[in-house]
Amino acid sequence: MKEVVAGIDIGGTNTVFGLVDKSGNILAQGNLKTTDYPEIKNFVSVVTVSINKLIEEKTDLELIGIGIGAPNANYHKGTIELAPNLAWKGIVPLAEYMKEKFDVPIAVTNDANAAAIGEMIFGGAKKMKNFIILTLGTGLGSGIVINGEVVYGHTGHAGELGHTIIVPGGRDCGCGRQGCYETYASASGLVRTVLYMLSEMRDESPLRDIKPSDLTSKIIGETASKGDNIAVEALDYTAEYLALGIINAIGFSSPEAIFLFGGLAQAGEMLFTPLRKYIDENIQPIFKGTVKVLPSGVSESNAAVLGAAALAWNELR
Amino acid sequence: MKEVVAGIDIGGTNTVFGLVDKSGNILAQGNLKTTDYPEIKNFVSVVTVSINKLIEEKTDLELIGIGIGAPNANYHKGTIELAPNLAWKGIVPLAEYMKEKFDVPIAVTNDANAAAIGEMIFGGAKKMKNFIILTLGTGLGSGIVINGEVVYGHTGHAGELGHTIIVPGGRDCGCGRQGCYETYASASGLVRTVLYMLSEMRDESPLRDIKPSDLTSKIIGETASKGDNIAVEALDYTAEYLALGIINAIGFSSPEAIFLFGGLAQAGEMLFTPLRKYIDENIQPIFKGTVKVLPSGVSESNAAVLGAAALAWNELR
Repeated sequence: MKEVVAGIDIGGTNTVFGLVDKSGNILAQGNLKTTDYPEIKNFVSVVTVSINKLIEEKTDLELIGIGIGAPNANYHKGTIELAPNLAWKGIVPLAEYMKEKFDVPIAVTNDANAAAIGEMIFGGAKKMKNFIILTLGTGLGSGIVINGEVVYGHTGHAGELGHTIIVPGGRDCGCGRQGCYETYASASGLVRTVLYMLSEMRDESPLRDIKPSDLTSKIIGETASKGDNIAVEALDYTAEYLALGIINAIGFSSPEAIFLFGGLAQAGEMLFTPLRKYIDENIQPIFKGTVKVLPSGVSESNAAVLGAAALAWNELR
Repeated sequence: MKEVVAGIDIGGTNTVFGLVDKSGNILAQGNLKTTDYPEIKNFVSVVTVSINKLIEEKTDLELIGIGIGAPNANYHKGTIELAPNLAWKGIVPLAEYMKEKFDVPIAVTNDANAAAIGEMIFGGAKKMKNFIILTLGTGLGSGIVINGEVVYGHTGHAGELGHTIIVPGGRDCGCGRQGCYETYASASGLVRTVLYMLSEMRDESPLRDIKPSDLTSKIIGETASKGDNIAVEALDYTAEYLALGIINAIGFSSPEAIFLFGGLAQAGEMLFTPLRKYIDENIQPIFKGTVKVLPSGVSESNAAVLGAAALAWNELR
């Protein structure tokens, strides 16, 4: 029998799951629409059936743990709490419900913490004890590892860098406050920055012919790679603010590396080159040259399942 | 024989040291002028003689460890590195030199980390696993405890919140950058804020009759307590920016408490009342009501020796 864990990533729209061995091979996987199950108990039942089916199909597998990544998850309590993008309201005792179905260790954490553990177990941080991963999608998620352990803090919700304030009185944020890191440093922050550049600059640009509601970081990245000035300036500005939050995070925990993951990170060197320049120019002198800034070592397509599976393997250590 | 450790606090001007038992009683103490010993080896010799003398005077004591707090100390390496306020240049292997004199465990850390351990072992954080202490003097030092351990990070220099940037393009800082936390949230930041208020407001104030170079946080605190509008506004503004950095630190590590220590913290409720208000108004909703904001539980007069001694006791655990 080969030992495997199940990695489950619950998103607002889709849930993906897979059976993963200790080396990070995904031996079987599946998915379902989260939105099809407005009742959490039904969701748990369907996930249970699906995972058991995957195990039965591969006759030689033994399930020894389950890791779950979910929005607003509380690792300490095994709950999902007040998640705005899920139908399940209030505080959902997900780990408890899953334990009624599976007699194995079960752990729950948020997406960004799962990504951090994925990076540590299967990705670019295998030998690192101190690093931070930023997931740059619609918002900015963060997973912080210190002394080889994810930081959960007193409440279980530590690592909310996306809502640290980097510009007092700055851009309006969905959280009701202003100047949060993710309003500048995320895929949607980049879109806002393009609109700002269109207001500030007079350069012609194909971005003037796209409805703001249709703009994406992908379009902006492609436009920049063709040399468009507005798009290039927007990426540069984004890199400057992304650097600012990274510099402050370095002052806090002095990591060996910062990993970037998600849509915005895929802009590649168009982002990384100015980012490294701004970090180098503005970092506290005592930390100069001590931090690597790297793309995630886990492939985008498998990261969700691998992160959740890594959580399970990490618990079993 | 009663077991004691020696706590040594090295400051730019003075060095204080004492023998401290496990309960935090200072059984004997002494001091010397750091500036009298521009050669580190002479300094180590004199400290050695002084400590041995204290032990001999009390015949029933056994020295079992030494803890040292010093500016720019590196815990990992036991060194003092490039300290601008000390005569000893370059990288000083202080722990190594001390080990030639004493056959006990010796640890070195910076002042703020020593204060954090002092708070944890002898002060208000005895049962806490996650907290932060801010030392608000000429600058802003910080010691961060996560999962019961001081955060040193990859380099050993983690916890430099005083030089995180909270106002991009803000006040000039001694580090050569702009908008650092300590330029707003420290005793000297408060003095700068009074000058700003004197420029912005038209109120009469006794502070207009004091040379800027003679202004201190003590004078400003006393003036505020008499109801002077400029001083009160300056403390309120300081509280707002102090809150901003605290809120961001909470987003990072979700501590159970924030402790404030040092000159500025002695303004008492004139500072704490607006500080708690600004934190409550601007904290990320997920952390609302989860963090206590407290004055340090270690008395100012003993804190330096007790912090260094706590470091030693903590190593011996």
